[in-house]
Amino acid sequence: MTEGLLSPDNALLAEHIGERRVCAFVSPTVNRLYGERLRGYFRTRLPASSWTLSVIPAGEQNKSLVTVEQVCASAKEAALDRNGVMVAIGGGVTTDVVGFAASIYARGVRYIRLNTTLVGQVDAGVGVKTGVNALGSKNMFGAYHAPHASINDAAFLDTLPRRDVLCGLAEIIKMAVIRDDGLFRSLEQHPGIFHRDARPRRANVEEHVIRTSIRLMLEELCPNLRELNLARPVDFGHTFSPAIETASGYRVAHGEAVAIDMAVSSHLARLLGICDAEECERIVDLIVDLGLPIFDETCTPELMQHALRASWERRGRRLNIVVPTRVGSIRFIDDLDDLPGSAIEETLKALQARVRSVGGRFPVSAWSSR
Amino acid sequence: MTEGLLSPDNALLAEHIGERRVCAFVSPTVNRLYGERLRGYFRTRLPASSWTLSVIPAGEQNKSLVTVEQVCASAKEAALDRNGVMVAIGGGVTTDVVGFAASIYARGVRYIRLNTTLVGQVDAGVGVKTGVNALGSKNMFGAYHAPHASINDAAFLDTLPRRDVLCGLAEIIKMAVIRDDGLFRSLEQHPGIFHRDARPRRANVEEHVIRTSIRLMLEELCPNLRELNLARPVDFGHTFSPAIETASGYRVAHGEAVAIDMAVSSHLARLLGICDAEECERIVDLIVDLGLPIFDETCTPELMQHALRASWERRGRRLNIVVPTRVGSIRFIDDLDDLPGSAIEETLKALQARVRSVGGRFPVSAWSSR
Repeated sequence: MTEGLLSPDNALLAEHIGERRVCAFVSPTVNRLYGERLRGYFRTRLPASSWTLSVIPAGEQNKSLVTVEQVCASAKEAALDRNGVMVAIGGGVTTDVVGFAASIYARGVRYIRLNTTLVGQVDAGVGVKTGVNALGSKNMFGAYHAPHASINDAAFLDTLPRRDVLCGLAEIIKMAVIRDDGLFRSLEQHPGIFHRDARPRRANVEEHVIRTSIRLMLEELCPNLRELNLARPVDFGHTFSPAIETASGYRVAHGEAVAIDMAVSSHLARLLGICDAEECERIVDLIVDLGLPIFDETCTPELMQHALRASWERRGRRLNIVVPTRVGSIRFIDDLDDLPGSAIEETLKALQARVRSVGGRFPVSAWSSR
Repeated sequence: MTEGLLSPDNALLAEHIGERRVCAFVSPTVNRLYGERLRGYFRTRLPASSWTLSVIPAGEQNKSLVTVEQVCASAKEAALDRNGVMVAIGGGVTTDVVGFAASIYARGVRYIRLNTTLVGQVDAGVGVKTGVNALGSKNMFGAYHAPHASINDAAFLDTLPRRDVLCGLAEIIKMAVIRDDGLFRSLEQHPGIFHRDARPRRANVEEHVIRTSIRLMLEELCPNLRELNLARPVDFGHTFSPAIETASGYRVAHGEAVAIDMAVSSHLARLLGICDAEECERIVDLIVDLGLPIFDETCTPELMQHALRASWERRGRRLNIVVPTRVGSIRFIDDLDDLPGSAIEETLKALQARVRSVGGRFPVSAWSSR
């Protein structure tokens, strides 16, 4: 983490680049917001003909092999050799695409992630996963390819749409539920966290939350970098969510689907006697209070069953559903027999009823910045 | 190395597959020659719905991302999950394409190489490199992705065209020159080695040569699996050869280009006083005696200079030209100033004269099976 990353006075990025040739890639949005400052930084700190900056398409639909080839073609044109470095400045899509391109270009070159979104800073930008969507599946092609550096500056969040902030918060809630009641309490006490117009800004709380979330994520990932163990606590919120995203045609964003999944998984754990009713309520309440959804119309019992099957396949034909036992602690459900269809139906009904009772409050805030 | 690999009595392949789902891939030629025996092996040794066998296009022009996507689509259709295994049965193109597909499919699945060519057995099938051609460059995209197993059966060589045998011999000569005068002498004493119609067949010599070549290759690759050190003795014969292949429009095969490159590099070393005239002659003689080329009409001084530049870029902007000091020992030329253009011109003239003096004998044998 740094401050003033793009200020010419800040040596961090230039030091990580060193003497290497650089091909930097940004999304159109990042180019609009930060393109000039990036070019200014490179002009000031790097030799004239040693760097290029290219704009690549963003959005889930462009997280594809086509964009990867585009990144590689730009790098080839710039004569990037195997000692060179790619730099991705953007959200998870940009860093995943460039990271995957870096993994296959000349059998692998270095890349640096500058994460401009909250999801990128606490989730997608932590760890070594890269990938693109293909053959109708998310992250069908990819590589475990560690970044040379992954750099975060909280100032990027000032230009982040509220909806994207919320998606990052969903992943922070995930870390809190699986690992850290203290982090969870920080969020409970500051439901306006990362609100741009919240006064007074609690920069110290926000930085503490980001740093804690990253640290916990690193602790979870480091012993299992290549996911040889497919029983992963960080998969909390990631059992039903891929199916929800896909079924909604990506109307429901990843973080929103994760929020819904966490509510569903927590409620299931409550029905199955794994989690206290009170602790389950805390989790659902926090999701709602922060402005994230706990239900979507796509969430039919059939879709949930389909999601369980897909998740089972993804996890090497093991179920490994993560559910909380209380805030800060989880266990796995390994057997479909432990998960009756009636529990899923009852869960969906309860969450739908809860949505009706709050009069659509959270959907308004969740969708307001679309 | 095994014998009778495709005999239902041979458990080796089935043991390496274990309980995993299998997607096997063959070239059209391998399908024609061995498809039925492969299917028979799988039918006998594996559960009915656990395997598929697909034919993928072969040839340098199909060593592409398009073929990789085709491999992955077949695997997806067969519901190959991350515990599954891909099996490539064929030459370097097939194993490189399938190996690269395996490296990106679901962020990496296992793959097994069954090497059916001599190049595959002693060179391409050893080590962890995979890759495809793209953006006008050989192996532009790829990964270092170790095979789960790399299995050789010398019986595959019985159906190999003579030209492909010779290409494998070029890589064996390479290993002999850089490491092992004893291996070199084995080749000198048996110029008919791997000739299908040579009588008596010297199976024990052939197996000794293959095993020795693989062992030496492994010794060279193991300390430097990911090529972080770009001064590689195994790059002998691989300085000028990519340019020769490309300039000839792939009329000159890889192994033939390697043979020419070895002759050029050895003669350069002789002119520069690095290598004895007598040792240089041994190398050029062996290449000629085995039936490989030492010169091609594409080899102009300009192409050689272009090749040096491209090689310099490929090796992280270092020259690192491998030249023999004698058979079994090499050194690197690091400085272009040590390599005057006049030496290159004189080398090409000498090799061209040598070709004329032998009355085109080796081109006949080199091209005879095209």
